[in-house]
Amino acid sequence: MLRTEEYGKVKRIKVSNNVIRRLPRYLRKLDELQESGINRVSSFELGQQLGLTPSQIRQDFSCFGEFGQQGYGYNVAALREQISVILGMDRGYRAILIGAGNIGHALMDNFSFQQCGVELAAAFDVKESLIGTLFHGVPILSMDSLEDYLKKNPVAIAVLAVPKEAALNVTKTLIENGIEAIWNFTNMELTEPNSPILVENVHFSDSLLSLSYFVSERMDENAARSAQE
Amino acid sequence: MLRTEEYGKVKRIKVSNNVIRRLPRYLRKLDELQESGINRVSSFELGQQLGLTPSQIRQDFSCFGEFGQQGYGYNVAALREQISVILGMDRGYRAILIGAGNIGHALMDNFSFQQCGVELAAAFDVKESLIGTLFHGVPILSMDSLEDYLKKNPVAIAVLAVPKEAALNVTKTLIENGIEAIWNFTNMELTEPNSPILVENVHFSDSLLSLSYFVSERMDENAARSAQE
Repeated sequence: MLRTEEYGKVKRIKVSNNVIRRLPRYLRKLDELQESGINRVSSFELGQQLGLTPSQIRQDFSCFGEFGQQGYGYNVAALREQISVILGMDRGYRAILIGAGNIGHALMDNFSFQQCGVELAAAFDVKESLIGTLFHGVPILSMDSLEDYLKKNPVAIAVLAVPKEAALNVTKTLIENGIEAIWNFTNMELTEPNSPILVENVHFSDSLLSLSYFVSERMDENAARSAQE
Repeated sequence: MLRTEEYGKVKRIKVSNNVIRRLPRYLRKLDELQESGINRVSSFELGQQLGLTPSQIRQDFSCFGEFGQQGYGYNVAALREQISVILGMDRGYRAILIGAGNIGHALMDNFSFQQCGVELAAAFDVKESLIGTLFHGVPILSMDSLEDYLKKNPVAIAVLAVPKEAALNVTKTLIENGIEAIWNFTNMELTEPNSPILVENVHFSDSLLSLSYFVSERMDENAARSAQE
């Protein structure tokens, strides 16, 4: 994203998905560095800590303009700030949670939407005993009032945490009422390829399978080592 | 991973993290293709569906040996099978869940460990009302019995879903009792760099921030378009 001089006008260049996926990782690492009181970091050091090559890192950042100064490394706070702007964290997106079951409650309990620059404004559920209550300051409203709520309140992101069976119906309602982005915890494929709605699927299995790979790698290495002894 | 002819002997080559992270995505896509009755896929088609270049895909697979046949594409079932073996899904790893709160219940409810080739053998919690119960066939045991359980049962992976405050103490117990891999849902950094334990962190924020990027990109494009009109 290159901001031109004219205020508010943003010129975007198409950036690869892989680069975008690395931005939150950079952000977390920079947060860690800041917490440890480190103010400056080279692409070499950053690369070492993230398992990337320095040239990869320089190339990633160059997609969004010039951040570092040759030979001086990056200013941690400034780089963090710029990445947060690229990610849209300064835009104050409003989100709603659909489904206040286990996953929904876990998110309200443990996950900081605010740290991502997102305001969780309301949650929706069908369970009578939940409706009308507050959870960590978030009102839980009736699913029946969802359409009406969306007509009155601009919402950028719907967090979908309903049971699988309800996923497609709720998605239909969301799309019909102008929601453009769904953060999908339901393990259901919500859209056809090339659908205009943005869907970010949370795939727990990807992360467990990566771990399974690393466990296997280690076991094979151990086995190879003891075979040699 | 290149299996030599001698049975059971596995020779591993060091593969980059990025390649490993893509393997579960390949697996999901191949599952989808199989479900749609597609038996053969080219690196071009696979790349198009995953937003990767064909040469990237060929390069990824070449890390693990020869899968495809020039000009014929990949056999979907065979490629799926080989990736599942690379990921260790055929090894029947045993996992235990530490913490049967919201996240823990959500995982037992909605997530198929079995589909990842992992057996969820038991869950542990401190809550008296849960201890001794079964949830989807998984016994919930007392946290006090964790050490004893680990001494008697080989466990490859601990799924950590305890409150933040308890995370470090539980991790200490796990490491002391020989657990080598933790699937970490606590949002706490569990280890120092270069720690011998394998930790896979589930970072919800990475996925929400990527979505925030895509929303921002779209809004900027829409704004640019209406400015031109």
